[in-house]
Amino acid sequence: MASELRQRRRVQFSETDAAGIVHFANYFRYFEDAEHALWREAGLSIHPEPSPIGWPRVSASCEYHRALKFEQEFEIAVEIREISRRTITYSGTITRDGERVATATWKIACVTKLPDGTMRSTDIPGEIADRLKPSGDAHRTSPLAPPTL
Amino acid sequence: MASELRQRRRVQFSETDAAGIVHFANYFRYFEDAEHALWREAGLSIHPEPSPIGWPRVSASCEYHRALKFEQEFEIAVEIREISRRTITYSGTITRDGERVATATWKIACVTKLPDGTMRSTDIPGEIADRLKPSGDAHRTSPLAPPTL
Amino acid sequence: MASELRQRRRVQFSETDAAGIVHFANYFRYFEDAEHALWREAGLSIHPEPSPIGWPRVSASCEYHRALKFEQEFEIAVEIREISRRTITYSGTITRDGERVATATWKIACVTKLPDGTMRSTDIPGEIADRLKPSGDAHRTSPLAPPTL
Amino acid sequence: MASELRQRRRVQFSETDAAGIVHFANYFRYFEDAEHALWREAGLSIHPEPSPIGWPRVSASCEYHRALKFEQEFEIAVEIREISRRTITYSGTITRDGERVATATWKIACVTKLPDGTMRSTDIPGEIADRLKPSGDAHRTSPLAPPTL
Repeated sequence: MASELRQRRRVQFSETDAAGIVHFANYFRYFEDAEHALWREAGLSIHPEPSPIGWPRVSASCEYHRALKFEQEFEIAVEIREISRRTITYSGTITRDGERVATATWKIACVTKLPDGTMRSTDIPGEIADRLKPSGDAHRTSPLAPPTL
Repeated sequence: MASELRQRRRVQFSETDAAGIVHFANYFRYFEDAEHALWREAGLSIHPEPSPIGWPRVSASCEYHRALKFEQEFEIAVEIREISRRTITYSGTITRDGERVATATWKIACVTKLPDGTMRSTDIPGEIADRLKPSGDAHRTSPLAPPTL
Repeated sequence: MASELRQRRRVQFSETDAAGIVHFANYFRYFEDAEHALWREAGLSIHPEPSPIGWPRVSASCEYHRALKFEQEFEIAVEIREISRRTITYSGTITRDGERVATATWKIACVTKLPDGTMRSTDIPGEIADRLKPSGDAHRTSPLAPPTL
Repeated sequence: MASELRQRRRVQFSETDAAGIVHFANYFRYFEDAEHALWREAGLSIHPEPSPIGWPRVSASCEYHRALKFEQEFEIAVEIREISRRTITYSGTITRDGERVATATWKIACVTKLPDGTMRSTDIPGEIADRLKPSGDAHRTSPLAPPTL
């Protein structure tokens, strides 16, 4: 079972742009890579083959606090914030030397792929829901709960 | 002077992923490309060389309503929502055959590049502010104005 | 029927890298986009859905003569050099203001997708071979042929 | 001093395309990332800031033998094949479970950045040439040959 994951990585040259820093759209890839690693940590793949279901993004947002440059090392932390019947919401943080570089939140939806190529929202299969859980939110929203984590 | 811009484009193969649809991070590139075209429409470049200033993203968010597939044509509309002393906020929409595919909003900040490679927030130069203006916000914030749009 | 195609496009910001020029790997995307446009010109799609066949790259090479920078406009020309029973070979050129920027050659193979996910080489379907033809090679390799182009 | 480098990595979702495999252009990024790691292994950066020199690609080519899919792990090996006064030539191989996936070769040139933004070929600085050396292939392919390197 997994709720969060941390990764270290290094900025690659093809991720930078002419401003000399990581192109802003690549942060979404950094967070997605860590999200998929979290699934692997839980013994799952977000895109097994074949599979009748898929996990498109419903929304994604990122705030940029500092820039990253070629070859800089940084740390990504992602955690599951909420699991509803049909969606999973994550938050993530990128830091470098302890300073916040970017913070993000995004939501994915469980869908069935229809024969005509479209997708329809569906319930998250039990064998997946059983292996992913929100990251200690109970404690934050309910300060009186005993610290069981 | 420019406030908004529309573009038509087609999904390229390298923009898709193994789910058979445009990878979600590429929508941010679609919107950025249109934003930069809006600047050109205003007679500006967002990245002239050399230049003492730059325009990093402060935040970016996107909601995904439908998927796009290889070779599908779609339309992007971007507009300037707000210009403050040091930032510009945009919103954008991607549609296909009149149906909403994605909606986004993002903010860029005007910065000075310091000798040590870091960036510091600075006022938007007058010659740039003079050529960009919010898209009809006056009418929305002032309901008594005649419906000139 | 199509043999070659020309496109004009402009360098987008996300295509550049920290050296201030288009990242070398993106030239392969430029050429691929033009290749797929050539197929559309011939009334074909290189990736229809569903389809029992696919067209993976066998090889790709590019020589870089000049750099391209943000917002520069350039021209891409691609042409079919050779069609064998199971492969298609292309060449392409990128120019800017009449000067050579890059030259490339690449080969794709027609494959059948097997149930286990692997691919096996197969003959190019007649309805595709009928619509694509090498770009005037007959004349170059056979100087006695009538100048029908 | 470094001549070659090996890396293990895993296919990320954003690197795949609608054919369900790694997009061919991304192999060039895999090889480039390993090349830059080789420089770091030698105590160098291929893009320090600031620097009067740069290393654009002169040519790059890749042959594709097998496909890679999402989450598959693979190994990259790069080696320096030749160092001339102004260029460095590499070769690289990607393998998975001992099977060849791709083989590549590419050449970079040492250039000076001129004030007008163009680049001119220049000699490789001694402090760089001292730390990189060709990967002794003569010995492997011809065991009887005298050790001339």
